[in-house]
Amino acid sequence: MFGAMIHGEHDVRFEERPDPVIEEPTDAVVRTVATCVCGSDLWRYRGIAPVDSPTPIGHEYVGVVEEIGSQVTGVRPGDLVVGGFTTSDNTCPVCRKGMQSACLHAADYDGCQAQYIRVMNASGTLVTIPDTPDTALMPSLLALSDVMCTGWHAAVSAGVEPGCTAVVVGDGAVGLCAVLAAQQLGAEKVIAMSRHADRQAIARQFGATHIIPERGDEGVARVRDLTDGIGADAVLECVGTADSVDQALRSVRPGGQVGWVGVPHVEGLPLGRMFRRNIGLRGGIAPVRAYLDDLLARVMDGRIDPGRVFTLTLPLSQVAEGYAAMDERRTVKTMLIP
Amino acid sequence: MFGAMIHGEHDVRFEERPDPVIEEPTDAVVRTVATCVCGSDLWRYRGIAPVDSPTPIGHEYVGVVEEIGSQVTGVRPGDLVVGGFTTSDNTCPVCRKGMQSACLHAADYDGCQAQYIRVMNASGTLVTIPDTPDTALMPSLLALSDVMCTGWHAAVSAGVEPGCTAVVVGDGAVGLCAVLAAQQLGAEKVIAMSRHADRQAIARQFGATHIIPERGDEGVARVRDLTDGIGADAVLECVGTADSVDQALRSVRPGGQVGWVGVPHVEGLPLGRMFRRNIGLRGGIAPVRAYLDDLLARVMDGRIDPGRVFTLTLPLSQVAEGYAAMDERRTVKTMLIP
Ligand SMILES: [Zn+2]
Ligand SMILES: [Zn+2]
Repeated sequence: MFGAMIHGEHDVRFEERPDPVIEEPTDAVVRTVATCVCGSDLWRYRGIAPVDSPTPIGHEYVGVVEEIGSQVTGVRPGDLVVGGFTTSDNTCPVCRKGMQSACLHAADYDGCQAQYIRVMNASGTLVTIPDTPDTALMPSLLALSDVMCTGWHAAVSAGVEPGCTAVVVGDGAVGLCAVLAAQQLGAEKVIAMSRHADRQAIARQFGATHIIPERGDEGVARVRDLTDGIGADAVLECVGTADSVDQALRSVRPGGQVGWVGVPHVEGLPLGRMFRRNIGLRGGIAPVRAYLDDLLARVMDGRIDPGRVFTLTLPLSQVAEGYAAMDERRTVKTMLIP
Repeated sequence: MFGAMIHGEHDVRFEERPDPVIEEPTDAVVRTVATCVCGSDLWRYRGIAPVDSPTPIGHEYVGVVEEIGSQVTGVRPGDLVVGGFTTSDNTCPVCRKGMQSACLHAADYDGCQAQYIRVMNASGTLVTIPDTPDTALMPSLLALSDVMCTGWHAAVSAGVEPGCTAVVVGDGAVGLCAVLAAQQLGAEKVIAMSRHADRQAIARQFGATHIIPERGDEGVARVRDLTDGIGADAVLECVGTADSVDQALRSVRPGGQVGWVGVPHVEGLPLGRMFRRNIGLRGGIAPVRAYLDDLLARVMDGRIDPGRVFTLTLPLSQVAEGYAAMDERRTVKTMLIP
């Protein structure tokens, strides 16, 4: 089969790779119907994270089950499925607590930007998409594999509840999905911090009631203007840089919560200030499996359409261009079709 | 009047001080019925926090209202009252969100280990104790001024809920009250980490189902033995040292929460690990006023008896001995009667 390999900075190639096979009785092999490029893939593409040797890449997919191991239950060959960006058995004590991203038997994919994918922990990871969905739903189904569930996790971790005010820091695909999540969870004001007109437009479609293009002190002041001068109840941190984490911590009110889902690249946190102001911090790697059933139902009945974040679709063979377009911000997120 | 002044390390004196008076129309003057020494007072007593000049000390009390300013409502002269260790107007936007410890008009006491106390923000701070309570209830009423509400805040911040497993790090008065809070909030297992037999006994009276005397790796291993190998749902951090915060963060399961109420004396936190494991951190200075009504009712009808933490009672004139006894761990907490 063919799939994407990252060789180094700005160097992703569509190459022949070994066909995945069932290695464990808990594995499935899935034929990819749609996959995509993640903002987190760009860390290596941009040379910020090292690439020691050519490596398969990608961790999001919708596909059709080709083959299952002898112990796989719940999915059958021919099923159209979606799986999260980490695999989980969904039965261990950590999974039973709903934190499948820290499953005691978690295992990573060997590159999902490929024609076929080996899915470990298949029973606990894959969810069958009921009926045959309209093709128009495919982008939204694919978004469930990572960004929509990650944005949802930001909202849950930040404690978004009906009537609250939520600020979303970050206007990438995850940030936009976080706006949608905050709207769905009943936030009365959903404030998107975004400087890009195209992303602001999607944020508004997703339910943002206010857009703040300013950052730093000015951004904090704008948030306070909208929140009785005290900051927001819930702040959804969807970037992970020192600046964005700082923006998030300064935008939340005393007693409020920051839900962070952007992998943190920060030196430290203002712990004394957080303690004095009772600022909570929760979140991390999203437990996709915990949210999949609910969010799949919301996609199927049209309550959410997170697929709007895919502003470019390419054949999988043009994966290199898919990366370049995201790197240069010509698209929010690239969908790839084998 | 007479009250306690701290002059420096191991030097607290009972001295003549000016009688407090109404300075603002929102003030009240309270005649102290009972006051006490706080673990946080010991930072200065032990020379860890500096004492630049002789300073009035203490921030916990039950008393009788002597006089009120022209704008004070809700309490009247003659009322027996309890107030939290910070004052709050209970009307500003932050107070309305339930985080009265960060009130926009917060003001600190000028020493409550005294015969009389000036209470600023009296309407928003003082709560009248109904009827005339049995003298035996006095220690428990006094505990509402700080330690019981602070322990409660640890439990709320850690997300204690019915059926969960809670670990309490710290066996001082706050830690013991946190055990009681976890029990009241329905935790199924309440694990107290304590090495002192006298404190273990109080922890058991307060509802601890398990005692772990070990610390460090051994303590973490003991917690895991009791939690399917994954750690506790909720950890209540009631000390604030680097060691205790580390103990707390390592005792919580993936997706669990640490509620911290011990003023943090830490350099930093293991943010990468917290993110990967989705460990939440909430808490800070307790909003006493948010909990007072509920906890007062629980004291009055006998559901809780946090006064057990006062294992020594002295006349206020012997305040110096009250500090020494706590410093030397001869008592959990010292009550002082003017
Ligand atoms: Zn698991
Ligand atoms: Zn206030």
